[in-house]
This record gives sequence, structure tokens and C-alpha cells, in this order.
Amino acid sequence: MSALFAPTVPRLAALPPSRRALEIPTSPDRPVLTARVARLRGAGSMVRGRISRLSVRDVRFPTSLGGHGSDAMHTDPDYSAAYVVIETDAEDGIKGCGITFTLGKGTEVVVCAVNALAHHVLNKDLKDIVGDFRGFYRQLTSDGQLRWIGPEKGVVHLATAAVLNAVWDLWAKQEGKPVWKLLVDMDPRMLVSCIDFRYITDVLTEEDALEILQKGQVAKKEREKQMLAQGYPAYTTSCAWLGYSDDTLKQLCAQALKDGWTRFKVKVGADLQDDVRRCQIIRDMIGPEKTLMMDANQRWDVPEAVEWMSKLAKFKPLWIEEPTSPDDILGHAAISKALVPLGIGIATGEQCHNRVIFKQLLQAKALQFLQIDSCRLGSVNENLSVLLMAKKFEIPVCPHAGGVGLCELVQHLIIFDYISVSASLKNRMCEYVDHLHEHFKYPVMIQRASYMPPKDPGYSTEMKEESVKKHQYPDGEVWKKLLAAQEN
Amino acid sequence: MSALFAPTVPRLAALPPSRRALEIPTSPDRPVLTARVARLRGAGSMVRGRISRLSVRDVRFPTSLGGHGSDAMHTDPDYSAAYVVIETDAEDGIKGCGITFTLGKGTEVVVCAVNALAHHVLNKDLKDIVGDFRGFYRQLTSDGQLRWIGPEKGVVHLATAAVLNAVWDLWAKQEGKPVWKLLVDMDPRMLVSCIDFRYITDVLTEEDALEILQKGQVAKKEREKQMLAQGYPAYTTSCAWLGYSDDTLKQLCAQALKDGWTRFKVKVGADLQDDVRRCQIIRDMIGPEKTLMMDANQRWDVPEAVEWMSKLAKFKPLWIEEPTSPDDILGHAAISKALVPLGIGIATGEQCHNRVIFKQLLQAKALQFLQIDSCRLGSVNENLSVLLMAKKFEIPVCPHAGGVGLCELVQHLIIFDYISVSASLKNRMCEYVDHLHEHFKYPVMIQRASYMPPKDPGYSTEMKEESVKKHQYPDGEVWKKLLAAQEN
Repeated sequence: MSALFAPTVPRLAALPPSRRALEIPTSPDRPVLTARVARLRGAGSMVRGRISRLSVRDVRFPTSLGGHGSDAMHTDPDYSAAYVVIETDAEDGIKGCGITFTLGKGTEVVVCAVNALAHHVLNKDLKDIVGDFRGFYRQLTSDGQLRWIGPEKGVVHLATAAVLNAVWDLWAKQEGKPVWKLLVDMDPRMLVSCIDFRYITDVLTEEDALEILQKGQVAKKEREKQMLAQGYPAYTTSCAWLGYSDDTLKQLCAQALKDGWTRFKVKVGADLQDDVRRCQIIRDMIGPEKTLMMDANQRWDVPEAVEWMSKLAKFKPLWIEEPTSPDDILGHAAISKALVPLGIGIATGEQCHNRVIFKQLLQAKALQFLQIDSCRLGSVNENLSVLLMAKKFEIPVCPHAGGVGLCELVQHLIIFDYISVSASLKNRMCEYVDHLHEHFKYPVMIQRASYMPPKDPGYSTEMKEESVKKHQYPDGEVWKKLLAAQEN
Repeated sequence: MSALFAPTVPRLAALPPSRRALEIPTSPDRPVLTARVARLRGAGSMVRGRISRLSVRDVRFPTSLGGHGSDAMHTDPDYSAAYVVIETDAEDGIKGCGITFTLGKGTEVVVCAVNALAHHVLNKDLKDIVGDFRGFYRQLTSDGQLRWIGPEKGVVHLATAAVLNAVWDLWAKQEGKPVWKLLVDMDPRMLVSCIDFRYITDVLTEEDALEILQKGQVAKKEREKQMLAQGYPAYTTSCAWLGYSDDTLKQLCAQALKDGWTRFKVKVGADLQDDVRRCQIIRDMIGPEKTLMMDANQRWDVPEAVEWMSKLAKFKPLWIEEPTSPDDILGHAAISKALVPLGIGIATGEQCHNRVIFKQLLQAKALQFLQIDSCRLGSVNENLSVLLMAKKFEIPVCPHAGGVGLCELVQHLIIFDYISVSASLKNRMCEYVDHLHEHFKYPVMIQRASYMPPKDPGYSTEMKEESVKKHQYPDGEVWKKLLAAQEN
């Protein structure tokens, strides 16, 4: 892809009339939709095609063999994904690819849930989906029968994320833009029309959202230029997984320092003496000025979190991440109250299951750093609402990433956040983990410890077909071998 | 079953030595397990056998055809269940049956999740499971890979409930007691050993739990007698589903009054004028003295809930149930603050996904009535922790029931609660819905608008095999016909 933001398909004139998204006749009995379509038209939209196929596959990488990704609660993760591909009847051959991230076992359950949602997507015109994206989101999350097994949480919400991530990838590819740029260029009213405000209007109304987004238009061209030149600041989690030996830790840390990293995260929570030793090693190596974060992955109860972190305070962590259950808003508030006076902030979010939890974490002053996740929340749509709430409370967003594909996705959201919402880099950075990027067609690009804005159209979610085939569970080549070895 | 609490199998002597649960040699390196086994021994336990088979089926009843169960958010439910049966290698032929309740679509996803959990159960000795039930619970809910798609919420937690409900059914059948009686007779230390206190010790420690249960021993014989004679008070939801016409509502209400019901619940939340009319009808029919509850099934945002209910206050509801998202603890607290002065309490719980949510609802004074659910929480184990927390905060428990099998299960929990925990009937009652009981082998028995304590061993979860076969989805006779008719 040579030209920046070049569309991947010929322009409108080359398409047969029936595929022209902008050719919808206006109708007095559909005034809302008409207004939205008008906005699509105003944006020069190229949205087209009817969803004709949805496929989903169970793709697993045997990361547990190397201790990568191990933490106090997830000791042997095989980074995996439910990988969704949607196709349309448009003649451009463009596919939308979406993932949700998982840890191995259970991916088949998410695959099953994607199939249960598929009937909401199939045979829909993409222009109807994005023309009333709020309505479509509500349809997926509030199906009168399916919502019982959520609602908007766990397996069924992860599946929703995978499906919607594919829709966003498709939309952005059709528009010839990376998702962050699609969002940055989008009319604020159109952005607001993607958000389901149900259950958050006591904190953020449509009007509030619009006001924030309109303010975000000021000087956004400069911020976009800045991002394209310098990228978005990142921190690394790759050095200090719980399963790594001290030697591995030192070696990776030395290499990361050489590569220009200035912000490091260490996993803690399984054993206090171990933690003290490992934190000492890493603090000694990075020196007193560089930033250190700690991550307990939900290991503690509330009193335990306070006690444990009081003992690690001497290593000057910027934050303790996931000190306790992701459901425990009041617990995080209590921990925050105890630890902020020690100079330690609270970070959480990667397992916060929807916007209602984030709303309350903000209301209760339960966190100092908010960590969105691109695959646990309901895709771009729900993340938009969380970014806007965080802006309203002036809490910095520092996204969760890593796993497989999470870096690829979330960079779009945080770059948009800087350009169009927060307009600030203070206390902000995006997680980075250096694993599994080679399986993606448009992998992240890190320069000088920063995410460089992706330039290829889409959501960077498309995997290499060869990788998918090899790692499909249980029939891909990689798993066939591993499972056979296990049996012998 | 003629004799009360008669064991369903011959006594220990008739079993081969290898099956004798009490014959475990003590071992100094397993002191905790040994102590627990000693307690099992003290209780004259008959626990035996190794789990040799687990099967799970997707069973659906086409209730949407009659508008039964319809509410403001679930307009067309087909009451369904993932139905789990576990078998052991003991020669008694006893099976454990467990369900989790669903609404039709998505049951197949829960079935898939049960299969993902099965390896934790298969080939385990039942005596090892119940001898360290906390450990077993933790194993199911904290699997290093599977917990990512929860944790302890949504599909995977519903599946956990189905599996554990089957284990409790098996255990109680082996002991020859209904589950409520098994719990009532259980040593408090043994009860405490079934509970996972993770994430709730800031509110309820093991010591707190033990103290509450020991106090509950006082006069429990009298309360057991009282339950056996009079039953546990119930209220009915059968009269006023949202999909019923005014005529049906009147007719069912008249019949319920004739049958001795004194407490009624009406569904609200879809349309205010409709609600006013329907509430007027029902209040006129039952008169000013009888109890009326309202249920919005999560339809509103926080400000909307307050406004809407202010307009229905004149009908004197005891509570408004599920005014907003089940995840919104602070929202419920705000609604409670506004409505309690109008004489309306807040009730919620049927979609609260684990003990951490209930802990916070209690901490935040967000509810006046706590509604446990036997299939959404992690079976008896997690419900025990919630009953004890409710006792600590002196909040009455009024269980959710209905659906398919929920009445059968939850009666055990609430009867135990009265005899051994709360010792009070003030402001307490258990939901009752008169549907689908005919499919159970040991259906609930209602007399004088009260649940009469079940006397058959087990958890009342066993379904008639003929019903299961007929209603299996999509291959059972009932569905074959319906699906064929749909196609024509």
C-alpha cells in the first residue's frame, strides 16, 4: 500500500448502481436513518454491500510452552483468538476481519457464541448497519433470548466484540482508511450515533458526548501530524512475566533499555518475597527515573492488596494494576484511598466487562489510570463511550494490549483518543508486548518506544491465512503435532 | 419415596470396600483434607464413587408461543435449560442432575461451556470433591485458561452452576436427604469449607461465617418443624406477564386470589400508560392490603427509573425489581436513595453474576430485598456466601424463581436460610411461577401459597426423561414439529 489512506477499491463511479451506498432514496417515514445517511453522504462514504457470509475459527498459539504471558492468575495461557471473517456481495472482494482474544481453552465456547450471533449480521446491508450503528449494537447485545446468558458480559460479549471488530475492519477498508483515521475524520454526530448510551446517561448523555467531541475538533490537525511524526508513547510488559527466571528478566530488561524503552511493567502477586526480589532487580536495572508499573492480575482481596503493595511501595511503582476482582468497584475505591497517599495509583480495565463497570469506577474515584481493552468491550462502539466518560472525569486512558492482536487493535483507539478526545499525553501510554505480531498482515510498528499510526486501511486485524491454518485448534499442523506428542 | 429422608441406597456395609468413602487412610501431609474427611465421617457420610460420566443436553420449552415469561427486556423467551447428568462408578445407580436456566437461543453456548469444564469433574472421587469443596469450586472458576472468558460471570459461570448443581444433587441423593436438609444437618465448619471467600473477606471472613452459622443452630429444630408444617411463604408472578392481555390478567388474578395468594408481582417498564392501567387493574382486584411488587427487568437508566417509579408509587408497591443494569451498584444505590422515602424498596439479584456484586450492593445500601438465583451464582456454594453476607447486613433474601426448574432448586436454599441463617420470615418470601413443573420428577409442592419442604433426596433437579427427549433442541419431537411448521 503506497499512498497514505488510499482506498482499496475503485471509486464510486466504477460500481454498479445497486451497490452505491449513497444512492438511497430519502423517505419521510425514516427521518433518523435519512439524517444518518446524509451524514454518511457528507463524509463521502463508500459503504456498500450486503453481508453474505460470516465464518469464525478457533486459532491458538502454544505460548504456554515458553511461560510467555504467565501471571499470578493465568499460569499457563495459550494466547488464542476467535477469528471472524465477514464477506459481502459487493464485487470488491474486501473482507472484514475481527478477533476477540482468549487464553486457549474456552475459545471454542466463544466460537459457538459468535455462531449464535451470526443471524443478526447475515443479510444486512453494511450501510444499514453503520447508518444506525447504535441500533445494530443494541440488537446484538439485547437479543431477547441471548441477553440472559450475558447481558453484555463474558462469552457473549467477547463474541459481540469479535463480530463488531470485523464490521469496523470492513467499514474502514471500504473507506480506504485505518480505523483511527476513519474515527478522526468522522462527524461528531456520526460518532455519537455509534454509541449505546443505555445505563450511562446519569454520567454521560448524548449532548455531553457531542460537546466533548466538538471541543476535540480544535487543533486536531496538529495532533494528527504529531502522531504521524512521533507516534503514541508505549510501555513494555515483555520483560517481566511471572514465569520468567531472574536471568531471563535481566537479559530482556537490558535489551529493552538498549531499544529505548523507558517504561516497564512487572507481574506480581504470587509470592511476596519473589516480588521483592524481582522488583529490586528491575528497579536496579532501569534506575530511579524510569517508570515502573506493577500488575497483580486480580490475585488479592482488598485488605491483602493494601498490605502487599505497602511493602512494594519502596520500588516507586506508578500504578498497581488489577489488585483485586475486576467486578469490585468499591474494593478498588478502598484500595485507591489507601495507596494513593503512598504515591501508587490504581489501574484496571482489561477484564472490566462493559461501560457500566467503567462508569462506576470513575464515579467512585476507584482508579487513576483507565485501561480499555479492544476485545472485551463491545468493539469501537462501547470503547467510544468509555473514552468519553474518562475524558469527562479527566482520568488518563492507558490501554491494555498484548495477547494476540490486542496491540494491533487498540493502537487505533488510543491514537483517535489523543487526536479527537483527550488532546493530552500526560500520564498516558499504551501497553506493548512483543509477541505474535508476525501472524498479522498489517502488524504494529514500534519506533522509539512509540506506536506509529498504522496507514493501511482497516483495523489491522487481518491475520495471515497461513498462520490461521497452521494454528487452528485442534486440526492445524501445530496442534496436531503437539497433541500427538502429548499422547505419546 | 415413603420414608422421610430415607437413603435411596443400601447402607455402607453393602458396598464393596473400595467404594467406602470413609475408609480413606489419614495422611500427615494432607492435614486439611483429613480434617474435612473427619467431619464427613462425623456426619455419618455415605459419599462414594468416582465420577465416570458427564452428559449435557439442550432442553427448550416453546413458552414464547403463549407470551409466558415476557417482560420489558425479554419479549419472547423460550424457557430452557442446559441439563447436566453426572454418573459415578458406584454400584448404586444414583445420578446427579443439574440445570442452569436459559431463555432459548444461547443454550447451545452454555452446553459448549459445560463440556469445556467437564475435565475438571471427570474421574474425580465424589468424596474428594465434597471433602474439599472450596478447592473444587476454585478449580472450576479459576482455571488458568478458562477464567479469561469469565471470570465468574456469564456463560462460563452459568455452566459452572449447572455442573455444581448436579454435584449437590448427587451428594444429597447419596446421603438420602433433600439438599435443604443436608445443609441444615451439616456441621457449620463443613458448610464454611464449601465457600470460596476470595474477594469478599473485606465484608465476610471465615470466622464471621462460622459465627453466624453457629448462632443459627439455636432453636433450629423448632424452625425445621415449623417449615415442615407450614412451608415457606411464596408470592406469584404468574398473573401479570407483560405479554398478557388485560382480560387474561384479570382472570389469572381472580383465580390466584381464590387459591389463597396474597402477594403478587406485575411486570412494568415498557410503556408508562400501559403500566398505570395494568397496575390499577391489579391493585383494584387484590385490594389495598395485599402485597404488590413491580419488576422492570432492567429497562431503565437511573434517572428514568426514579421518574417512572414516582408515577407508579400511588399503587403502593413493596419493591421495584431490577430498575436498571444488574451491574450498576452505584445506580441502584442512587435509585434506592430516591425511592425509599416514597415507601418503595429496591430488589435485585437474578442477573447479578457473582458474590462480588452482591457484596457491593450490600455495602452501598443499594437494595432492600436481595434476590438470589440458584442457577446464575455458582450453585449452593456461592449462594451460601451471599446468604451469610445478607444476614450480616440484615437484608431479607427473597429468591428469584420461575423459568424452568428455578422454583425446584431455590426452595432448598431459602428453607435452609430460614432454619439455619436468618431465623426470620419478616419481609421475606420466595417467588413462584406456575409453569413447567410437570417436567420434573420431584416437582415443587405449593400449599396455602407456601413452598412445602421437599422430602425426596436430592436437589429436585431431575427431569423426566420423556420430557427431556421430547424437548431436546433441535431434535426432540416438539421442536421438529415447530421448526417444520416454521419452514412451511
